[in-house]
Amino acid sequence: MSIVVVGSVAFDTIASPSGSVKDILGGAATYFSLAASYFTQVRMVAVVGEDFGAEQEKVFEKHGIDTRGIERAQGKTFRWGGSYTDNLNEAKTNFTDLNVFQTFQPRIPSEYNDTEFLFLANIQPTLQADVRRKMNGVRLTGCDTMNYWIQGTRNELGETLKLVDVLLINDTETKMLANETNLPRAAHKVLAMGPKALVIKHGEYGATIFFREGAFGIGRHPFRAPALPIEEVKDPTGAGDSFAGGFMGYLASQKELSREVLKRALFYGGVMGSFAVERFGTERLQSLTRDEIDERFQVFRELTHLE
Amino acid sequence: MSIVVVGSVAFDTIASPSGSVKDILGGAATYFSLAASYFTQVRMVAVVGEDFGAEQEKVFEKHGIDTRGIERAQGKTFRWGGSYTDNLNEAKTNFTDLNVFQTFQPRIPSEYNDTEFLFLANIQPTLQADVRRKMNGVRLTGCDTMNYWIQGTRNELGETLKLVDVLLINDTETKMLANETNLPRAAHKVLAMGPKALVIKHGEYGATIFFREGAFGIGRHPFRAPALPIEEVKDPTGAGDSFAGGFMGYLASQKELSREVLKRALFYGGVMGSFAVERFGTERLQSLTRDEIDERFQVFRELTHLE
Repeated sequence: MSIVVVGSVAFDTIASPSGSVKDILGGAATYFSLAASYFTQVRMVAVVGEDFGAEQEKVFEKHGIDTRGIERAQGKTFRWGGSYTDNLNEAKTNFTDLNVFQTFQPRIPSEYNDTEFLFLANIQPTLQADVRRKMNGVRLTGCDTMNYWIQGTRNELGETLKLVDVLLINDTETKMLANETNLPRAAHKVLAMGPKALVIKHGEYGATIFFREGAFGIGRHPFRAPALPIEEVKDPTGAGDSFAGGFMGYLASQKELSREVLKRALFYGGVMGSFAVERFGTERLQSLTRDEIDERFQVFRELTHLE
Repeated sequence: MSIVVVGSVAFDTIASPSGSVKDILGGAATYFSLAASYFTQVRMVAVVGEDFGAEQEKVFEKHGIDTRGIERAQGKTFRWGGSYTDNLNEAKTNFTDLNVFQTFQPRIPSEYNDTEFLFLANIQPTLQADVRRKMNGVRLTGCDTMNYWIQGTRNELGETLKLVDVLLINDTETKMLANETNLPRAAHKVLAMGPKALVIKHGEYGATIFFREGAFGIGRHPFRAPALPIEEVKDPTGAGDSFAGGFMGYLASQKELSREVLKRALFYGGVMGSFAVERFGTERLQSLTRDEIDERFQVFRELTHLE
């Protein structure tokens, strides 16, 4: 099966305690696509500028990613600059040059129409809803968002949430969205807004999936995937998008959405996130093999597995 | 088998968003003893004042806890007052009246001499080391500490750490003790100070155990136990001590310290911590059954278990 992702493609300039890089390929849709490409066929919807060339195109090609939905606009590609100090969980944004992304109007190529899975990466909620409505035949829609949209466009985001099946956000975003400091209570409030399932990403502590009663026909007990304690985090950029890529990519590779499949998807999400942070940018995601991925899946499983 | 615990018995005055209580039975040794009593025979070493009466004594008696090591001193029992606001992970201390605890010199009754397990709850490191040296025949020693001792008595704590097998502390304390912000790297630095194993408590995210290479003959791969997302946290006081009670109590109930036993102990630690916070003070810990404990153990197991 295949999955469409709509989101940003960017050039990132990043500094962390491990070093720094300038204008490397990044953006939520990029991380998501590369991570998901190890599980399923990925189709991108994004916009880039005239500075996006053969070198970048090749990265996606190498992973069999369909780029017919990447629009080439006049001007420069979206640029982001960020730095991490000792607390690697939080990026300090140094600059955001939206460039061609500022007027992004997602267009879905007709060749994408038979796609069964959709992921709405972190973009303006009304654009997310538009895409979701245009792709009315999808079986399952995943969605990301951030504090900026939760605070600034709460009503629009509310409309989007009614159209998605799985929302993937972090602890802080969940509490902010629900206006509630207790995490499980916040989770149930968010589920009441629309999604059938809520994946809360806890960074180095893993992730928890909460289900709406009766969703997917599997009952409401939450499930948690641990994360690997990593000694060398080089660059946390894209960890969340890579998590989403592993999670959604694995779902898209499966025939049915059982509880066990959703559980495994959560583990694969953590696995892809853990690879992403080992090198700067998408370097590690570009060079993986499915064997390496499944090996780490086993390590994650062993991390909490009792006989 | 049995376990000796040395630490504080106190009267706590606590306020949380769920209500408030005054002068209820508390203290690290109390929480630890009650939690561990569901697994093994517990022997306490502590000091109380003249205000400690039959009512409190009865709580320990009911759980078969040996109180011959509780010294009755002239004066008042240690009193602590704290409050929790929305962030239930952090207590604001309102007052600390050490009272008889100020001059506490732990004395081990000769009847305790055949004890195989020892837990040094959070007290001054030199006192911990003294007790450890007096109980030279123990098979395994667990130890707790806190930021106050890490910052104020680093050298003394260093001496204590050479004498203990398992240190149980939280994320912040681990990073502070190791002077290192990356958690797994910090863990290995702490292990180099003496303990064979380090249990890092992550609050609502569970706990991780790191092993020194070759410790217990089981290799160095860490293991993580998840925690249950709890909707109703009434009073977080004593959660860490109850965790330690579940962890050490389970170990003391087992014939050998295999990797699987240490893994299960980590789960039982989380289980006891999760019960403790459901009611104010020790109320929930006083009324448990082993069946309830094992039921929750299964829930914790299911939380991350893949087929």
